[in-house]
Amino acid sequence: MNLQDVGEEALLQQLFPLLPLNRDVIAGAGDDCAVARFGRSGDLLLLKTDCVVEEVHFSAAAKPSAVGWKAMARPLSDFAAMSALPRFALVTLIVPPARRVRWVTELYRGLAKAAKAFDVAIVGGETSRTNGPVIVSVSIVGSAEKERLVRRSGGQPGDDLFVTGRLGGSLGGRHLRFTPRIHESRWLTANFPVHAMMDLSDGLGADLPRLAAASGVGFEVEENAIPRHRGVSVSSAVSDGEDYELLFAVSSQDTAVLLRKWKQQWPLELTRIGRLTTAAEGSATLARGYAHYA
Amino acid sequence: MNLQDVGEEALLQQLFPLLPLNRDVIAGAGDDCAVARFGRSGDLLLLKTDCVVEEVHFSAAAKPSAVGWKAMARPLSDFAAMSALPRFALVTLIVPPARRVRWVTELYRGLAKAAKAFDVAIVGGETSRTNGPVIVSVSIVGSAEKERLVRRSGGQPGDDLFVTGRLGGSLGGRHLRFTPRIHESRWLTANFPVHAMMDLSDGLGADLPRLAAASGVGFEVEENAIPRHRGVSVSSAVSDGEDYELLFAVSSQDTAVLLRKWKQQWPLELTRIGRLTTAAEGSATLARGYAHYA
Repeated sequence: MNLQDVGEEALLQQLFPLLPLNRDVIAGAGDDCAVARFGRSGDLLLLKTDCVVEEVHFSAAAKPSAVGWKAMARPLSDFAAMSALPRFALVTLIVPPARRVRWVTELYRGLAKAAKAFDVAIVGGETSRTNGPVIVSVSIVGSAEKERLVRRSGGQPGDDLFVTGRLGGSLGGRHLRFTPRIHESRWLTANFPVHAMMDLSDGLGADLPRLAAASGVGFEVEENAIPRHRGVSVSSAVSDGEDYELLFAVSSQDTAVLLRKWKQQWPLELTRIGRLTTAAEGSATLARGYAHYA
Repeated sequence: MNLQDVGEEALLQQLFPLLPLNRDVIAGAGDDCAVARFGRSGDLLLLKTDCVVEEVHFSAAAKPSAVGWKAMARPLSDFAAMSALPRFALVTLIVPPARRVRWVTELYRGLAKAAKAFDVAIVGGETSRTNGPVIVSVSIVGSAEKERLVRRSGGQPGDDLFVTGRLGGSLGGRHLRFTPRIHESRWLTANFPVHAMMDLSDGLGADLPRLAAASGVGFEVEENAIPRHRGVSVSSAVSDGEDYELLFAVSSQDTAVLLRKWKQQWPLELTRIGRLTTAAEGSATLARGYAHYA
């Protein structure tokens, strides 16, 4: 059987059991970031790698500085998802020999700009030649306080569900220039107990069921409440993906104060889109979630 | 100007100044591993990324498990070079859709085998499709005690120079199945003050001048002392590369005890190949090093 006959998820399911772990690994492949204990003081180390491939994640016509920004911002968004602090990045750039040197330096300017915006050091860079498409692979290592690390699995029935910013239509250009919500995520865990969180990379319709499944709960979403970019349909807002906004769950008792304090702190919108339910009561898919309100 | 018009080193020289650092970075791109302070206890964090590309680092006919072994062993060897402990690995695999699933799982078995041999956990795996050559990119994070971290820059005039194992002829097959010298390297720094160390990836002729330059010293090598694999010429032993043996410098006062204790501890050979000199006295290239003895 060839790779084209199996989906990405099915392939990873075959590979994950082969991967060795050790006693210090707390969360391995499958979470937004891997989490491990490190050093004498038992600090948490977070690790994430992500790559962008030409004609898959960006078009050949895209500005190289925007490609670099996106390549760095994608794994940074996974740190936001867990309320972690990114610290150090390693970059591997694989590029055809006919590409202009200036294209590569502009790409690095984009990588560096995104890294600097979050005080991340790029501590290693490697380039390799290929006759295939351009590939930019970025690995990021960072830290998180034990009490502030947020995973997907802590959601509880009755929690309210929130989304930052607006969703949908990202492929029109926003997918190349989004801002990882690290500052907002760190503020959230400094001020509220956040039960579960993730970043929206595959779209609310694909990602929310993952958060619910990890938490062992169901969900209800109010379709009209989903914050959409101008001119974007509800179905686009649910399915387009590449929003890189935060989706998170907090106790409904905290909702009023959260919404008030957020508004004082951030120009970015914060919207309550629904709530978590028991697994029996709620929905397994967003489509069924809609039906619940129909 | 296109990439094909500039060498790898020249390109990296253009890119390095663009990379942001932060206050915790001790050694950035350019060393065997990057080194940074991490966590409340100020432990040293080491980071390294390396990739292998089909038809550059392995042939399409190579066994996938051997390709996986090599992809993991190369960055592991950089940890040996600094006497550091590798702990966690992230793997990115980029592969054509027509490749067989079994080829990919065998590749992962090779990655896992090399990782397990050194108690390294593979905490993240990503796969992406391409129509170009197979690429396996591995990032490794680990630790080192401040007092045992060895860099290239600590060599002193009068130090003796040692090489582990034998050199040359690696492309005949050893480049796919070499053993990173982590155990030996850790034993060295537990028992002796090692002034400078690196792993031999580009060949003694290219790598020794780098160690000497980083230390601000010269060197003299005794051509006939260079340990060679059977049937390998001196020039091959100097130039072939991909040996992944250790090259290191210790005080000549430690030489006798080192050689005796090493022999008791390790089946692997250890050979004194020459010494470090003052920059004025010694040689800038290995060819001139030979001339010194001619």
